[in-house]
Amino acid sequence: MESFAAALDAVSAKKKTMVCVGLDPDPRRMPIEDVAEFNKRIVDATHPLVAAYKPQMAYYEALGIPGLNALEQTVRHIRDVAPEVMIVGDGKRGDMGSSATAYASAMFDVWDFDATTVNAYQGSDTVEPFLQYPGRGVFILCRTSNPSSRDFQDLRVDEEEKPQLFEKVAEAAERWDIGGNIGLVIGATFPMELRLLRADHQTMPFLVPGVGAQGGDVIKAVKAGVDGNGRGMLINSSRGIIYASDHPKDYPRYAKIAATSLRQQINVATEAAPGAAL
Amino acid sequence: MESFAAALDAVSAKKKTMVCVGLDPDPRRMPIEDVAEFNKRIVDATHPLVAAYKPQMAYYEALGIPGLNALEQTVRHIRDVAPEVMIVGDGKRGDMGSSATAYASAMFDVWDFDATTVNAYQGSDTVEPFLQYPGRGVFILCRTSNPSSRDFQDLRVDEEEKPQLFEKVAEAAERWDIGGNIGLVIGATFPMELRLLRADHQTMPFLVPGVGAQGGDVIKAVKAGVDGNGRGMLINSSRGIIYASDHPKDYPRYAKIAATSLRQQINVATEAAPGAAL
Repeated sequence: MESFAAALDAVSAKKKTMVCVGLDPDPRRMPIEDVAEFNKRIVDATHPLVAAYKPQMAYYEALGIPGLNALEQTVRHIRDVAPEVMIVGDGKRGDMGSSATAYASAMFDVWDFDATTVNAYQGSDTVEPFLQYPGRGVFILCRTSNPSSRDFQDLRVDEEEKPQLFEKVAEAAERWDIGGNIGLVIGATFPMELRLLRADHQTMPFLVPGVGAQGGDVIKAVKAGVDGNGRGMLINSSRGIIYASDHPKDYPRYAKIAATSLRQQINVATEAAPGAAL
Repeated sequence: MESFAAALDAVSAKKKTMVCVGLDPDPRRMPIEDVAEFNKRIVDATHPLVAAYKPQMAYYEALGIPGLNALEQTVRHIRDVAPEVMIVGDGKRGDMGSSATAYASAMFDVWDFDATTVNAYQGSDTVEPFLQYPGRGVFILCRTSNPSSRDFQDLRVDEEEKPQLFEKVAEAAERWDIGGNIGLVIGATFPMELRLLRADHQTMPFLVPGVGAQGGDVIKAVKAGVDGNGRGMLINSSRGIIYASDHPKDYPRYAKIAATSLRQQINVATEAAPGAAL
């Protein structure tokens, strides 16, 4: 079976896009009330432009069981209209033993996501059950986009080269990745770290949040993080696309404009990246 | 408003118990099929003996929306029959910004848990939104009970005293804890670490999984981890109690026997602990 990294690369190459749209329905910001309908219109307007959608579990859980029903409908709708697009369930789960097995089952059997995000603070036990699903991707939190990621991820480890904790996590991720299904979450807000990690991990896909509202620079992030083929990244934007307009009638059109613009920025940056062409 | 630590201590002192029963419904092990009914009978049989119940979110999520409905019924049942008992929603969530705010809302507004577990790999941003709920507890993953917790948690940090990563996490947790609502998750499988962390953090409650199936020794863990009053811990057992019998008729009775025995072991160990009496 094709690895997740290969499948993602194929979509990205075919559609010439590394755009990932974060589906983060926030009742205080949505121009219409119905979550499933809100997502449906965003998907209809943007799917030709994107390689992936990334529903953030927190927003659905905060709405209780009706929120999870809306997520179920959203996944079904994406499969119907854009079966080639990857769905990354962003849950940042991390547990051990039979609990980790249950989380992997929730993400891949129940939700049927193509990939999910995992927090590996508890070590290999947290990741291993997710690797039992051939072709499904696991993005391990490495260097996250938020300011306080520095609290622990930047700590230098008492070893000869004094690596930082996030480098140790990336090193372990590479070691665990026997099937080509592991990627790393690295914030666009840290282009130097993106460059460093790409140099050390040439083939792993990077899921890169933090452009737009969080202040990450798309061009810098792409130049720093693309692989040798000018691909290998998913650049996620949530608020910048789904809340591009707060008007109930035109928000899908503005989401499309924002997604088009992000795709263009990425592709221009890619052409300018060393030895790369999307 | 009373802090979570004070409220937990009050229940523990009044009922002379530090037992926490993990409600981890696994279809392959449950003697009856109905999750809500399975939990209900466990709760009815054990609530006089326990300070807390700890539903592990993974098991409910793995059953899809029917699983989450069963969790809803379980929480309601515990509130009805044992309103003084704490409910710790074990989700190990960890995210940032508005996603972390949404997770906190899911755990405390939607699920109405008294406390929850949080993974702080992303730093203070992950914890801060959970602290906006006065009196609700946050147990931060510190030194988890699984073997591969060593992968990252044991790494020594390049600072003068060469602390290990889990010590840095505990240090940060103490610093963030302005309202007495933060505790630490520390595995019973690591009694030396429990002793070390108690010496440095005298008042934080410890949530201690890993006894029974995972091999942690109750007596050693309790002696190492109790606070100056001989309390300050929740000793969690899941499989050892809820699957004490696989027979549909007698499993509640065996759950009660197992919970009674765990409570006794803890209380004997507490009396033997230096300067402590429950």
